[in-house]
Amino acid sequence: MRTRVAIIGAGPAGLLLSHLLGLAGVDSVLVERQSAEHVRSRIRAGILESSTVELLTEVGLGDRLARESLAHQGIYLQWPGHRHHLDFHDLVGRSVCVYGQTEVTLDLMRALAAAGRTAFYEASDVQPHDVESDRPFVTFTDADGTPQRLDAEVIAGCDGFHGPSRTAIPDSVRQTWERTYPFAWLGVLADVAPSTDDLIYAWHPDGFALHSMRSHHVSRLYLQVRPDEDLSEWSDDRIWTALATRFGAGIDGWELKTGPITEKSVLPMRSFVATPMRHGNLFLAGDAAHIVPPTGAKGLNLAVADVALLARALTALLTEGRTELADAYSDTALRRVWRCTHFSWWMTMMLHRHGDDFDARLQLSQLERVINSRAAARELAENYAGLAIGY
Amino acid sequence: MRTRVAIIGAGPAGLLLSHLLGLAGVDSVLVERQSAEHVRSRIRAGILESSTVELLTEVGLGDRLARESLAHQGIYLQWPGHRHHLDFHDLVGRSVCVYGQTEVTLDLMRALAAAGRTAFYEASDVQPHDVESDRPFVTFTDADGTPQRLDAEVIAGCDGFHGPSRTAIPDSVRQTWERTYPFAWLGVLADVAPSTDDLIYAWHPDGFALHSMRSHHVSRLYLQVRPDEDLSEWSDDRIWTALATRFGAGIDGWELKTGPITEKSVLPMRSFVATPMRHGNLFLAGDAAHIVPPTGAKGLNLAVADVALLARALTALLTEGRTELADAYSDTALRRVWRCTHFSWWMTMMLHRHGDDFDARLQLSQLERVINSRAAARELAENYAGLAIGY
Repeated sequence: MRTRVAIIGAGPAGLLLSHLLGLAGVDSVLVERQSAEHVRSRIRAGILESSTVELLTEVGLGDRLARESLAHQGIYLQWPGHRHHLDFHDLVGRSVCVYGQTEVTLDLMRALAAAGRTAFYEASDVQPHDVESDRPFVTFTDADGTPQRLDAEVIAGCDGFHGPSRTAIPDSVRQTWERTYPFAWLGVLADVAPSTDDLIYAWHPDGFALHSMRSHHVSRLYLQVRPDEDLSEWSDDRIWTALATRFGAGIDGWELKTGPITEKSVLPMRSFVATPMRHGNLFLAGDAAHIVPPTGAKGLNLAVADVALLARALTALLTEGRTELADAYSDTALRRVWRCTHFSWWMTMMLHRHGDDFDARLQLSQLERVINSRAAARELAENYAGLAIGY
Repeated sequence: MRTRVAIIGAGPAGLLLSHLLGLAGVDSVLVERQSAEHVRSRIRAGILESSTVELLTEVGLGDRLARESLAHQGIYLQWPGHRHHLDFHDLVGRSVCVYGQTEVTLDLMRALAAAGRTAFYEASDVQPHDVESDRPFVTFTDADGTPQRLDAEVIAGCDGFHGPSRTAIPDSVRQTWERTYPFAWLGVLADVAPSTDDLIYAWHPDGFALHSMRSHHVSRLYLQVRPDEDLSEWSDDRIWTALATRFGAGIDGWELKTGPITEKSVLPMRSFVATPMRHGNLFLAGDAAHIVPPTGAKGLNLAVADVALLARALTALLTEGRTELADAYSDTALRRVWRCTHFSWWMTMMLHRHGDDFDARLQLSQLERVINSRAAARELAENYAGLAIGY
């Protein structure tokens, strides 16, 4: 089988790349290890930056997004006795919206099906080959157990942190940076209307808590826990009590609404960057090249920004033979990657309990500063609401 | 002997407090462990914030300062291949100047001598007593070996980190926060014209370097070294070579001028805050209550801000019997203390090599952001150029 771009991984990054290339008349084939149903139902990110929304809208994926997403004005920052609103529209003229990664994925899958593009799900033993040559290819075993070979001009690695693409770049070329954090998130989905209009980021002596949401009827809530936390020790009651304590501390007249918890999991926190993002005819995008902790809501948006750059670069390369965007891809994408890596680390370290009492006072000093200084508030808002694609 | 305010410590904080109280008609007596000559010649800070300059000018100490200080437009931030200027006037409408702590001290000593105020130098066994009562007093042995007792209404502890005032606050009341950093500064004074108009803060793989100055003819230069660095291993040649490497990296057409080194020392880096800053009739100001690492040039300015608040509070208390400023002193002063503690920590952690390669990339991301974002640049400039007194 032959195509122009073999895309490993059919999460939002791979799906969007296939969609954008298709609009530009460039054929691609998707190869995904999981089932379509599994990909579609993975609970992941939920916050879209304005540049992500603009891009999705420009490429025909904006209809349901416009109808069903929840526009947010900003965020709340809270610590005991204080809850302050940061108004991103006022600060930087743009903001974010809530629209689950599951919904983005569904919209992309529908668009791909409508366009009749090829995707192999439940592919095993996926492996890129000869990425330094002009004739790279991908081998895998398809869902029926038949070995397949997919020849291409370019391979796009959109296969996440655990996929085979990144490791196809030789060790002698590849450089990695990594940070694991001494805490994790216990995340729950609950069938209850959100108790807030905008997200609440709460610093608390017991640990960080985040009140997010997926819709007018579904809340998404997080508690800072130990990385080795045992989920079985967290009854629904214990979770609601901890959430009420951390969000309620000293905030008069506010109450956390509770409801049935429908999903519960522990999410590790990690920063990771691999360079380069291009080697020969292999290009990496999204989690294959970088992971951010979820505190700044950057993961999905960063993947979308990578893919926007990559689609442009591959279109120029494959339809006009222009190499400059492809040659610049790694450096261009990494500028934003490092910016978001720094911002996500900063938000994480400001909001999670760690270290000693001096660290706690530094955190509270920083939080107070963000509230009291327009410069500091703008700096947070510019990063959170998102940089322009191509930053 | 009796006075209204017994001031322990005749460094810039104690001297300024005595001066300000004197202007308000409140008698005070200074008790200092060192000789006047020692106090006057201690090489310490050199950067004055605009609010410090305004205060000194308002209270009659601005003449020589206006003539001899070097006005600075901002600072340079540098890393290999990059040197960028941050223009504080453009960013926040105010800036800093260079005027050595030695000069501030000399101006204050002259003013005190002119006003005929009492100061005991070379006092030993200085000890505050009965600070919780209305009749606190200080005992010491004067330079002639005569035991002395100084009765007062209030004791001001301006006696630095190692002085006896802070520890006169009972352990049950006192809370402290401390951070030691895994590096130090090797500082030199050199008889050579500065090679720059504004200070250069340089990030370098070998470690941080700072190009400061004391006058048009004297440069003050610093190198990041280990806390246990052996000065005898640093010949003048080695120092100049290291400075030229760290400042010169990738900066075309710039050269570091060299000259005779006249002073050389290793300065430890520490953050420290003790609360409360008032207990009974004992009030702490400056290094007695807090230490910042020197990276943000905050130490002397923070002491001046404390003293400005304290002089106002003690004047209201002792001349009008109004207690509210004295009662608020600790909380009011600590707002600025924590702001400056956070800023000094932030500057220190951004600029010094520490941790792993991921930390280095975070530092470079932060430095690039400060250069590329006006919000981030303003946030640095507002803090560096200094907050209003009473912030």
